[in-house]
Amino acid sequence: MSYPPDKLHSMRIVVLAGGIGGARFLRGLKQAAPDADITVIGNTGDDIHLFGLKVCPDLDTVMYTLGGGINEEQGWGREGETFQVKAELAAYGVGPEWFGLGDRDFATHIVRTQMLGAGYPLSAVTEALCARWKPGVRLLPMSDDRVETHVAVDVPDSPTGERKAVHFQEYWVKMRASVEAHAVVPVGADQAKPAPGVLEALAAADVILFPPSNPVVSIGTILAVPGIREAIADAGVPVVGLSPIVGDAPVRGMADKVLAAIGVESTATAVAQHYGSGLLDGWLVDTVDAASVAEIEGAGIRSRAVPLMMTDLEATAAMAREALALAEEVRA
Amino acid sequence: MSYPPDKLHSMRIVVLAGGIGGARFLRGLKQAAPDADITVIGNTGDDIHLFGLKVCPDLDTVMYTLGGGINEEQGWGREGETFQVKAELAAYGVGPEWFGLGDRDFATHIVRTQMLGAGYPLSAVTEALCARWKPGVRLLPMSDDRVETHVAVDVPDSPTGERKAVHFQEYWVKMRASVEAHAVVPVGADQAKPAPGVLEALAAADVILFPPSNPVVSIGTILAVPGIREAIADAGVPVVGLSPIVGDAPVRGMADKVLAAIGVESTATAVAQHYGSGLLDGWLVDTVDAASVAEIEGAGIRSRAVPLMMTDLEATAAMAREALALAEEVRA
Repeated sequence: MSYPPDKLHSMRIVVLAGGIGGARFLRGLKQAAPDADITVIGNTGDDIHLFGLKVCPDLDTVMYTLGGGINEEQGWGREGETFQVKAELAAYGVGPEWFGLGDRDFATHIVRTQMLGAGYPLSAVTEALCARWKPGVRLLPMSDDRVETHVAVDVPDSPTGERKAVHFQEYWVKMRASVEAHAVVPVGADQAKPAPGVLEALAAADVILFPPSNPVVSIGTILAVPGIREAIADAGVPVVGLSPIVGDAPVRGMADKVLAAIGVESTATAVAQHYGSGLLDGWLVDTVDAASVAEIEGAGIRSRAVPLMMTDLEATAAMAREALALAEEVRA
Repeated sequence: MSYPPDKLHSMRIVVLAGGIGGARFLRGLKQAAPDADITVIGNTGDDIHLFGLKVCPDLDTVMYTLGGGINEEQGWGREGETFQVKAELAAYGVGPEWFGLGDRDFATHIVRTQMLGAGYPLSAVTEALCARWKPGVRLLPMSDDRVETHVAVDVPDSPTGERKAVHFQEYWVKMRASVEAHAVVPVGADQAKPAPGVLEALAAADVILFPPSNPVVSIGTILAVPGIREAIADAGVPVVGLSPIVGDAPVRGMADKVLAAIGVESTATAVAQHYGSGLLDGWLVDTVDAASVAEIEGAGIRSRAVPLMMTDLEATAAMAREALALAEEVRA
């Protein structure tokens, strides 16, 4: 591996991203590498149909965050949001009420649904929406095909120990991941094709990054689309990730719940080993997990301990610089 | 004709209604005949697909007006309305901007579109929406089939005098009926079937009323659905209308524009003659048009001159009482 292969183009960085964690990391990456050509492959396994509208939470979180429209406080949804439509839907007895769609956000889903109904693939719709938001990256859905992450949970009070599958959003948002997840299944992923541009971006990448996104329901879902994992391995460029687990607990969210479902411990080391040295070349852990570095390196993955809390833009940009530096170390 | 055929049921009144005029008249009718069993056959020729959503302006105006949710000032749309969704759609460059859908109103169209998408006919959807609004009448769309009123207008500055068809809402709302309407065509009406309950309601009616709604694009469209005109004639009960034209001008709206398109003068007399004695038994004109009564009666339609301005609920209830009184006069 050598970088750059030539000096004729900007560094091409491909990032696999989920929602909040991915979006915030991308903001830091843009600051750390202002001249880079960044392509984001976004998770669509969280997508859900609500009120007849197609909602793509992770794509929108990336788009709003990088485009300056995000609600900074909560990390998702629009700033200056109101909830008239939702209140009216509830007055009609139409739910679900547990998913917080605001009026501004509704407009995005209305435009998306109208375009999909007119026959445009999700990738073209995403490009059209980004024409307004100008996120400064090329945002691609992982696939134009429908993939929907379902979670197997116990049927409450079932005497026979029955289980049922619920949509990831129902598990995550409605149940607050409060019950055990027995399995996480990206329904449809095995039949899905990477969206136009995804494999091409990976093949042309100089660096591939896994931000501190959920390894199961965000990055794991993207990797479940046939062809993407192979394209990453075949790219022959450094693949570097940042641990979403700091001190044996997820930095945010409830990643531990879904890691347990796939039999992976909630540690920076276990997540690195889950990805494996066949996929991952480098892995950043937080300074509190510095003791894990040796074990990770023993597993064939270059590792370094640096501060991994995205407390502000500068801290996040520093993380991105560390990831790029580790990539160069791997390449050399 | 005799009324009531028996005393075992409340008076059954069927009203053919457009939007604002029909809705306001219905409010007066409910006050004038609080025990009556009122069925409203609503015009759906104004319906339009906007942003991928099915919008039914006339049905909604009746529903909101009778259910207490109307913007009283403007006569359509919701009270306490906000416009966040519309502003966002405009920010995406998605129009049309000339149709003023508010956030609260959007919820109605979202519910309707979702139900239609799930396979429910418009009549079932309307019943479901009315379960919330409790309008105190049975509101039926004239048809579950798609009917869309188009207006033929000149292509601006066409050297060859070309014409084009525009949706009624584009003519009415965007163009403010500012150009000549060469023709008004309820596209699809000839293939449409009356919605479930429409013919049954007409057959069981004790009285049929035409409120001061637009005779062309509201009541005319309803009458264009095969079977409805015949059912009215076959009902064998008094059919009484109220003139929407007072002193040679429409009370509100721009009915003169579309009357011209079908070659009917904008006078109370001409509209009565347009409906004709084969359909209409009685016709109320405003006191300023008292001189027309003789001519209308000469055309075989019982007529009376009474105040026809719906200035407030009491004045409107008085109009409804006059219409019912004229119906009894016809019946006797």
